Amino acid sequence: MKTTALQFCLALLGLSCLAPAAEAPARRVRPPAIVSPDIQADRHVTFRLQAPKATEVLVNGQWTDGRAPMTKGSNGVWSVTMGPIEPGVWEYSFQVDGLAMIDPGNPALKPMRAPRTSILHLPGQPPLIHDFQDVPHGVVHQYTYRSQALGRLRELVVYTPPGYDKQPDARFPTLYLQHGSGDNQATWVAHGKAHWILDNLLAQGRAKAMVVVMMDGHAATGGGAGGPTSNTALFERDLLEDVLPFVEANYRVKTDAANRAIAGLSMGGGQALAIGLQHPDRFAWIGGFSSGLPDQDSLTGLLSQPEAANEKLKLLWIACGKDDFLLKRNLDFIALLTEKHIRHTWRPSEGAHSWPVWRGYLAEFVPLLFQP
Amino acid sequence: MKTTALQFCLALLGLSCLAPAAEAPARRVRPPAIVSPDIQADRHVTFRLQAPKATEVLVNGQWTDGRAPMTKGSNGVWSVTMGPIEPGVWEYSFQVDGLAMIDPGNPALKPMRAPRTSILHLPGQPPLIHDFQDVPHGVVHQYTYRSQALGRLRELVVYTPPGYDKQPDARFPTLYLQHGSGDNQATWVAHGKAHWILDNLLAQGRAKAMVVVMMDGHAATGGGAGGPTSNTALFERDLLEDVLPFVEANYRVKTDAANRAIAGLSMGGGQALAIGLQHPDRFAWIGGFSSGLPDQDSLTGLLSQPEAANEKLKLLWIACGKDDFLLKRNLDFIALLTEKHIRHTWRPSEGAHSWPVWRGYLAEFVPLLFQP
Repeated sequence: MKTTALQFCLALLGLSCLAPAAEAPARRVRPPAIVSPDIQADRHVTFRLQAPKATEVLVNGQWTDGRAPMTKGSNGVWSVTMGPIEPGVWEYSFQVDGLAMIDPGNPALKPMRAPRTSILHLPGQPPLIHDFQDVPHGVVHQYTYRSQALGRLRELVVYTPPGYDKQPDARFPTLYLQHGSGDNQATWVAHGKAHWILDNLLAQGRAKAMVVVMMDGHAATGGGAGGPTSNTALFERDLLEDVLPFVEANYRVKTDAANRAIAGLSMGGGQALAIGLQHPDRFAWIGGFSSGLPDQDSLTGLLSQPEAANEKLKLLWIACGKDDFLLKRNLDFIALLTEKHIRHTWRPSEGAHSWPVWRGYLAEFVPLLFQP
Repeated sequence: MKTTALQFCLALLGLSCLAPAAEAPARRVRPPAIVSPDIQADRHVTFRLQAPKATEVLVNGQWTDGRAPMTKGSNGVWSVTMGPIEPGVWEYSFQVDGLAMIDPGNPALKPMRAPRTSILHLPGQPPLIHDFQDVPHGVVHQYTYRSQALGRLRELVVYTPPGYDKQPDARFPTLYLQHGSGDNQATWVAHGKAHWILDNLLAQGRAKAMVVVMMDGHAATGGGAGGPTSNTALFERDLLEDVLPFVEANYRVKTDAANRAIAGLSMGGGQALAIGLQHPDRFAWIGGFSSGLPDQDSLTGLLSQPEAANEKLKLLWIACGKDDFLLKRNLDFIALLTEKHIRHTWRPSEGAHSWPVWRGYLAEFVPLLFQP
């Protein structure tokens, strides 16, 4: 073997190092590397997309003034520099002749049922509550399981707190934490940064160590077949018949209602309220973030026996942003709870129906859990 | 609260259930659901993309005859039905006016540095070695860590075998398993199905229970700055100074060379060979799948003392497909090993530089590991 042959081989690999499509099917293409997002120290960010045949390309981002046209360069690469963009975990899409798509230069994608959204994470200085900090970290576990209730494969994510493995005799409380309709079981970690929020709250002594269970909220097949009511009913079966027993058999967790919480955002908030309020013997802590609301049937028990709810529930925490399209429904629900003298915490906030708001809710809600 | 208000709210959520962009920034769009890929029982598959302004849309898939034009319907939805497609885990892209992109209808994405590829998984009947089967399952753990060697945040994936948590006194061997240049630490699980291959081999009594560690092979920042040599050198530092000590402090693993293996594909195969052959005191089992090859410097020790290699190495296993663009380099390397009388296993195979080949290699390689 000659050195030149080795060098050729290394050069080849060097090129393939730079090439997004190095293992793409059918042919091997090695375009020049397109760096996007290209983040400067001052939080100006350049977005780039190689699309020589496109006629209009936009960035559509969640930050302030996040929508901007991109300009086509002579090399067929569209680009725009924006900012300085405020620290945060932001979602954005490219819009190419009207087609919304991820930024193919960015490996950080928001897990979604229909993925069109990339993640731009700009850490704060000092770090924000959802940023990775140099504190002890928990572990995120991924599972695929065959749901007996639903008869098909499903996905599950479980977070264990820092030190879980080093305390073989300890048992922990559990938070079941659900996502919204566009997302899936992976979104609270990949985009919500739930694991880092928990790590940071724990390091600050502001929360109890707990296990967090994140399920796929889409229990009905075929993208919502049967509507949200039947989806919630199916989800409840999968939770109570499959996942909760699995978690309690495989993790060192406490198994009484006082050590179980259920919460969620949007569709997942509706699921948390519907299931939690129907099963106060299972869950004593309930959180609804910008929630869809349960239907009347699931509230019958609660409304007919408000004293029982007040006796069993440790916390019924409901939050919604003042610009959220679900605000009116949440206000109506709060009025109903008030009228029936059902103890609850109402936390109106700034903001709309969006992940920056939900990260904040999680950081507020978790410190309240499992406290005496 | 009136029933009609509740019904309105539910209807809203029902719609948002179907809408990919339910939580998209800037505006909330609810197009009709586009189902893609739409998989029939006979393995015909329909692909769809809503792109009213596009002039040419293709599917570019890895299966036989996987490239096909899509046809535009009057609703602006492009579609094509292909198949029957053979069982397998296939990658595919849409090509929209020359722009390669994921299928935004499909939540299953191949983790890549520059994501342009979706996953079509058609299980076999009977199930294939990489399919989820009803056997005991291991657990996949995700970490973010601050690499002291590299001075920045990195990602890590660790698989523990079925029953790991139930055997507190057992210690396991470890396989360090690396991806190729286009991919990252998540690809061996999400696309390679390494966890299911391990689960299935174990259930069949064909492999030892082991921990598998999957790192991000891109240790150099900026998409290969400094070339693959310096990337491998940096990767080696992160492996030996950060990850290996972390794994051995946090998992119940054996810590002698006879219980450590290192393997990888393409760029990761080059890393496994370079690091393994330079550190036979650390790794006694080495696998190169369609490997990039180490440079001369990293082979000096091996070539000057072939007897030492033969004494220390339990297995040096090298495989490459007959249609692989790296075949010639691998054949040259095998000739060199033969000339120097360095014991090795050469496993030429069918196929090219692709994941279906690498899943097969893993299923062949793992049963050889840690055997007496």
